[in-house]
Amino acid sequence: MSNSSAPLDMLGRARLTSVASARAQLLSQISDCQPQSETLPLAECLDRICANQVLAPEDLPPTERSTMDGFAVVAADTFGASQSMPGYLEIKGEVIMGESPQARISRGTCFKIPTGGILPEGADAVVMHEHTVPVDDKVIEIIKPVGSGTNLIRKGDDIGKGGVAIERGRILRPQELGLLAGLGITEVEVFKPLIVAIISTGDEIIDYREPVRPGKIRNINSIVLGSHVLRCGAQVRDYGIVSDDESSFFSAVEKAVAQTDLVLFSGGSSVGMRDLGEQAIERIGNPGILVHGVSLKPGKPVIIGLCNKTPVFGLPGHPVSAMVCFDFFVKPAIDILSGRSFGEPDVQASVKARLKRNINSAAGRLDVIRVELRYESDELQAKPILGKSGAISTLSKAHGYFLIAEDCQGMNIDEIVEVYLYQ
Amino acid sequence: MSNSSAPLDMLGRARLTSVASARAQLLSQISDCQPQSETLPLAECLDRICANQVLAPEDLPPTERSTMDGFAVVAADTFGASQSMPGYLEIKGEVIMGESPQARISRGTCFKIPTGGILPEGADAVVMHEHTVPVDDKVIEIIKPVGSGTNLIRKGDDIGKGGVAIERGRILRPQELGLLAGLGITEVEVFKPLIVAIISTGDEIIDYREPVRPGKIRNINSIVLGSHVLRCGAQVRDYGIVSDDESSFFSAVEKAVAQTDLVLFSGGSSVGMRDLGEQAIERIGNPGILVHGVSLKPGKPVIIGLCNKTPVFGLPGHPVSAMVCFDFFVKPAIDILSGRSFGEPDVQASVKARLKRNINSAAGRLDVIRVELRYESDELQAKPILGKSGAISTLSKAHGYFLIAEDCQGMNIDEIVEVYLYQ
Repeated sequence: MSNSSAPLDMLGRARLTSVASARAQLLSQISDCQPQSETLPLAECLDRICANQVLAPEDLPPTERSTMDGFAVVAADTFGASQSMPGYLEIKGEVIMGESPQARISRGTCFKIPTGGILPEGADAVVMHEHTVPVDDKVIEIIKPVGSGTNLIRKGDDIGKGGVAIERGRILRPQELGLLAGLGITEVEVFKPLIVAIISTGDEIIDYREPVRPGKIRNINSIVLGSHVLRCGAQVRDYGIVSDDESSFFSAVEKAVAQTDLVLFSGGSSVGMRDLGEQAIERIGNPGILVHGVSLKPGKPVIIGLCNKTPVFGLPGHPVSAMVCFDFFVKPAIDILSGRSFGEPDVQASVKARLKRNINSAAGRLDVIRVELRYESDELQAKPILGKSGAISTLSKAHGYFLIAEDCQGMNIDEIVEVYLYQ
Repeated sequence: MSNSSAPLDMLGRARLTSVASARAQLLSQISDCQPQSETLPLAECLDRICANQVLAPEDLPPTERSTMDGFAVVAADTFGASQSMPGYLEIKGEVIMGESPQARISRGTCFKIPTGGILPEGADAVVMHEHTVPVDDKVIEIIKPVGSGTNLIRKGDDIGKGGVAIERGRILRPQELGLLAGLGITEVEVFKPLIVAIISTGDEIIDYREPVRPGKIRNINSIVLGSHVLRCGAQVRDYGIVSDDESSFFSAVEKAVAQTDLVLFSGGSSVGMRDLGEQAIERIGNPGILVHGVSLKPGKPVIIGLCNKTPVFGLPGHPVSAMVCFDFFVKPAIDILSGRSFGEPDVQASVKARLKRNINSAAGRLDVIRVELRYESDELQAKPILGKSGAISTLSKAHGYFLIAEDCQGMNIDEIVEVYLYQ
């Protein structure tokens, strides 16, 4: 046996799959999912996914309104006005906030109007207060001309009746709720949250609330993975800690596949556990294993399978590896199964920082390097966190990570790297 | 009167404050806040703020463990081993997952060990499975040497007893919960969520659940601002829609200041409403108004005050302006009052994109330009959304925004801009 890296896995028994290919294989298999929906009051829809295209039932705004404090005018009456040659208009009345103006404007007249006030009939523009000079209670000077449509928002300018307010699959951010409220839409059909099973495996694992005993280690992954699931907008069903023995483990996975939408088990970094995980996926449903082992560090031993329609992930037992695999494979699957469709483009924000030391990487492998960020002499610097992937504290210290691509054998000190932040 | 821009406001009555200075004035006044705390079970602490430094009550991991499948050895026994000149070790036993090894290792012997298994006494390294060749049931060949400490994680390597696990003021992300679980910490003292009052003002505003009537417009800001408050981890107390008249408005603000930690009122873009807002803040508590009007577009008419210890914000009525002011002033205040202290550095991730048209900006003003992002021939392009700041649909179309700084008079087509994403 040799010490070669990719494309053989650590036991020399299978080619490793690239991250991009593993993700594509997984996502193509679940892209036709049909999540269930429910109808909720608008105020409960924040960060939920819209299940049906919403059309505007009316114009927004419903009437023509001023966007400035000033005077509603017939624009033509202001043409040629200037400070030295002002135009004069008769003040015929005042628009009261929240009321429809009763009178109409004729040439040579104007109405005082507040921001948000409804334009009186006949008016087609608003002159800002500071472009007017009062002569007396009845007359003002206009010192700057306005074109038709100036300083107002027309009926339906924001969105017209029948226009698409929200596309199916879009997440309902604060501004989407605002748009729907503006249209008087009081409830929305949204996709139901996904239910994600979490199974922790290993005879050495105990609940973190128990006193630690010799040979045992507390369960870290369930709370870390569960928290990530919650942040994706899905719900967690915790199947607790399951023994390594075949029958306990198989029956737990089988139950989870039957009862939930997506299954995560973790703890299987040992070869025996890994074999057990693969066998469970192969036996419980079709097509079974999609990917075993990816050219990713940390995260190489991940197993990705599909039991009938339910994705099943065997995540490495090391918390750092498990979290990296969650980001790269589980989160995209949750997003798709939750009915989310992203508006183009698919972009990820980053910060640029100067690398503080050389980092080597094996060719053919995607490396995820956690970093601390720090300003030094006004420049953002990224200090790689070199800890074992079993060490959860390295994740807690990390502000973010950068990637070393498959075709790159490392990065040098003082190179600029793009750091993706851990929120 | 003239058409000059900053440093005079639109009525020529006050100098506008820069965004940086407005924020600094506000934050310096509230930096000594002492939020209340509560103690919660660990599983309920996701995204809460740690109220007290947490020290590790024990070593993590509690014992020395293997990070590979292989053989626990005395490192010195492997020195010089190679494929052509292997070392031979007697297999004395096997470490069982979850159990403490009973025997100890002496020179010339080894134990089979799985990933995560506890090192037997006497062993100081692990040889990976693939660097061994089985001879028979009792003996293996070692074909690669290991140094002391190789392929294992030592007791306390992740975090040592008494070390700082979590600093006060840090947000509890999934990885922080994992670290605490690993240490057996079952409950955490966290700061109580802030309570934020939302008051919507204006005789023209009606609840979005009501049918729209002539002269009225539905309340958009309460749900948009409330959603942003929730996303900051704070709680909303909705004071509903309050009339523009002085006594109703003053008593609503007074009640909100007494009952909550931070007060937002919105709707006051008209001059009359703005004056009323300023008077309310001045009358209800000290020091009163901190900032009225900032050199920001959209968002110029924002009012920032402090009534005793409670920040009070008068946000523009236009939803886009209100949201920009929320991002720049309200969110930082909520973060500070919530007890959050950010680990250095304060960075914001962005994506670079090529600007699709010229954009002018007045000198001395910070411009917030909303954009749609799109890939064109593999390049990310940012198309400015040119809508009135009253149009909520422009926010719903926006993928993010870029800034035009105070000292810049615009950006040209094809320049690269840094876009901050709206999540």
